[in-house]
Amino acid sequence: MRDVYVVGVGMIKFGRYPDKDVSQMGAEAGVLALKDAGASIKDVEMLVCGNLFQANAMNAQKILQQIGQTGIPALNVSNACATGSTAFREAYIGVASGMYDATMAVGVEQMGKMGLLGGGARSGGESVEGVLGSGLMPAVFGQAGVEHMRKHGTTAEHFAKISVKNHKHSVHNPLSQYQVEVSLDDVMNARMVAYPNTLYMCCPTGDGAAAALLMSEDKLRQFTSKPIKVATSVLTSDPYTDRDLTMPDVNTLTQNAAKEAYEKAGIGPQDLSLVELHDCFATAELLHYENLGLCGAGEAGRMIDEGRTELGGDIPVNVSGGLLSKGHPLGATGVANIYEIVTQLRGQGGARQVEGAKAGLAHVIGLGSACTIHILTA
Amino acid sequence: MRDVYVVGVGMIKFGRYPDKDVSQMGAEAGVLALKDAGASIKDVEMLVCGNLFQANAMNAQKILQQIGQTGIPALNVSNACATGSTAFREAYIGVASGMYDATMAVGVEQMGKMGLLGGGARSGGESVEGVLGSGLMPAVFGQAGVEHMRKHGTTAEHFAKISVKNHKHSVHNPLSQYQVEVSLDDVMNARMVAYPNTLYMCCPTGDGAAAALLMSEDKLRQFTSKPIKVATSVLTSDPYTDRDLTMPDVNTLTQNAAKEAYEKAGIGPQDLSLVELHDCFATAELLHYENLGLCGAGEAGRMIDEGRTELGGDIPVNVSGGLLSKGHPLGATGVANIYEIVTQLRGQGGARQVEGAKAGLAHVIGLGSACTIHILTA
Repeated sequence: MRDVYVVGVGMIKFGRYPDKDVSQMGAEAGVLALKDAGASIKDVEMLVCGNLFQANAMNAQKILQQIGQTGIPALNVSNACATGSTAFREAYIGVASGMYDATMAVGVEQMGKMGLLGGGARSGGESVEGVLGSGLMPAVFGQAGVEHMRKHGTTAEHFAKISVKNHKHSVHNPLSQYQVEVSLDDVMNARMVAYPNTLYMCCPTGDGAAAALLMSEDKLRQFTSKPIKVATSVLTSDPYTDRDLTMPDVNTLTQNAAKEAYEKAGIGPQDLSLVELHDCFATAELLHYENLGLCGAGEAGRMIDEGRTELGGDIPVNVSGGLLSKGHPLGATGVANIYEIVTQLRGQGGARQVEGAKAGLAHVIGLGSACTIHILTA
Repeated sequence: MRDVYVVGVGMIKFGRYPDKDVSQMGAEAGVLALKDAGASIKDVEMLVCGNLFQANAMNAQKILQQIGQTGIPALNVSNACATGSTAFREAYIGVASGMYDATMAVGVEQMGKMGLLGGGARSGGESVEGVLGSGLMPAVFGQAGVEHMRKHGTTAEHFAKISVKNHKHSVHNPLSQYQVEVSLDDVMNARMVAYPNTLYMCCPTGDGAAAALLMSEDKLRQFTSKPIKVATSVLTSDPYTDRDLTMPDVNTLTQNAAKEAYEKAGIGPQDLSLVELHDCFATAELLHYENLGLCGAGEAGRMIDEGRTELGGDIPVNVSGGLLSKGHPLGATGVANIYEIVTQLRGQGGARQVEGAKAGLAHVIGLGSACTIHILTA
C-alpha cells in the first residue's frame, strides 16, 4: 500500500438549496477542491460519489458531466451517515493500491425540509426497535445518553454544554449552516425532542456538498508543498454483541473502529491535535469522547466541564461547529469533516484555528451499520 | 498491485422471489460462494454489495447480519446496470491493494414485475432524450440496431438470431430464469417492443443474486487448487463526444473499456475462449461483437450467421443464456456473469461447457454511464 495525501478540499456552505440539484452541488464542491489544489479534472483518474437519498441516480457520472466528461471510472456508494466517508475511503484505496495517482471523493446530500425522524436502517417494522419506535434516531441517542447518566452520574447540563460549545465554534466557520451562539439556558429551555436532547442538541437537516482530491506522493509534487497525509482509513460494521434489543449499542462500533485506527496509524488519542466526531446529537458527542479514548470511561462529563474539548482546550472537538451547528447533509458529512481536518492541519482555520495542529481524527458513525475513522497528519 | 483470484462463486436461480427480501437473496448467494470455496464468513475481510433499487438500504450490512456479523468493513455501491460488476471491482481493488486477503462481492436485485420502461439515468425531463422519449431503454437499443442496419445492411433476422442462440444456450443453465428454446419464427413474430427488438429480443425483469469470493495468492492456497485469476478490471464512464443528441451512443463506452482492458491484460479478443456480454436487447449483443473487437466493423451480422458465437463456435457468447434468457436482475447481473466465466474456466459448465476454456471476458454496460470489463483466466 502506498501513502496517500489530500491535496485539495472544497465545500459549499451547508444550508438550503431548493433550486439546485444533487449533482450541481456536488460539482460545485468538486470544482472548489480542484481549484484548491490547482488541478484540473483531467488530473483525476477516478471519481467516487457518496449520496444517500439518490443513491442510485448516477450522481458521480452527472458530476463528471458538469466538471468535465473525461471517461474515467465513476461510481456511487452509500453507507448511511458514513456515506461520504466511505466514498472518501474508496478513493483512498484507489490511490493506496497503486491503481491511480489521483482520485476524487464527493459527498453530497439534499435533504430539504424533512423531519428528524428518518429512522435509518435499524428502524422499520422488521425489528424489535422498529416496532417499539426506539429505532428512531432521536430516541436511540436519547436513550444512550440516559444510560450514561444512570451509569456515571452525567447530567442533562453536561450534554447541553456540548451544544453550547459547538454553536460557539460555528460562529467562526463561514460554511456552517448556522453561525449563532446559544447560551446554556437557550439549550436547556429549548423544545424537548428526546430526553435529554432538546432541539439545539439535535443536528439540523440541510443540503450540502464537500469534495476531496487525493494523490500519491509522486503526483502531488506538481500541485502542493503542503500535502496532508492520510495516516489511516478504517471502516467497521456492527460486530455481533449480546446487546439489549430495546437499546441499540451506539458505542461498540466506534470503540472497535478507534482501536483499529490507533493501532494501524501508530497514533494514539494523546497524539491528536483535534477531532471532528459525529455529534448527530449532543449525547453522541459526549459518549464518543470515551469511545474514541479521549478520556476514560465515565470521565466525559468532567471533560466538557473542564473545557478540554473547546477551542483552546487540550483536545478541541468539532471546531467546525460539528453536525449540531455546521449541519448534517448526510452524504456530505463524511467528506466535510475531512475538509475541516485538512483546513486545520494546513493552518488555514482562521479564527477557529487549532494552534499547531499536527494530527486530526475524523469520525463518522452510521447506524445500520458503518463507522469510519480517518486519521490525517500534517 | 497484487494478483487477485476468484476462489468461490454462488448464484441463486434468477426468477421471482416475492416472499424474500433483497438481503435474504444476497445472503443466500453469499453462503453459496463461501461453500463453493470451502471458506467461512470469518475468512472474509470486506463485503461490497451492489444493489440498485434499494441502494441506500444498507444491504451489505444486512447480508452480514444473516451470514455472520463479524464487524468487517461493509459498503454499498450502485452504478446503473454495472452495479454488480462495480461491486466486484471494489472487492477486487481491496485485495489488489494489499489491504485485504479476502473480500466478497454480492450483487442482488428484486425487480418484481416492473415494466421494461425504467428509463435509466439518460431519461427524464431534463434531457433531450427524456423529452423525446428516446431515452427509454428499448428505444435506445432499438435505434442503435436500426443505425447498424442502415450503415451495414444488417437485417432484423440477424438480431433475432441472437435471441434464438441465447435461449438455446439457457436450456443447459439450471440457474437461468427461462430455459426454453425459441425458433426464429417465434422471435420474429413475437410482439414488437421497439423495432427491430420483439419481446423475445428484450431481457425479462426478475429477481436474483450472485456472489464472488476473491483472495490473494497467499490466502487462496488454503482453499482451492483451481483459482481463477482476475487478469484485469476496467471501469469507464462516458467520454465527451459530439454525439447526435437524439441517439445516445451505446458503442463508444464499450469500445473504450475494451481497448483499455486488452491493453492492461495483454490479452486480445483472439485469445478469448468465451464472452459474457451485456445483451439487454438482441441489438446490443450484435453491436458489442464489434465494440469488443470480436469482429471488424460491419461484420457482426455475418458473425451470427456463421454460428461463430454459438456454443461450439470459435468464440461462444453468452453460453449462460445471457440477459435475454438467464435474466437481468440489475444489481445481480455483473456478478452473475463473473459466476459464469469462473464456472466455465473451471470446466464445470456441464452441457454448456466451452471446451478447453482458458480466458473469458465479462462485460456490462450501464447507460448513465458505466461500463465494466473483467478478463479472467484459468
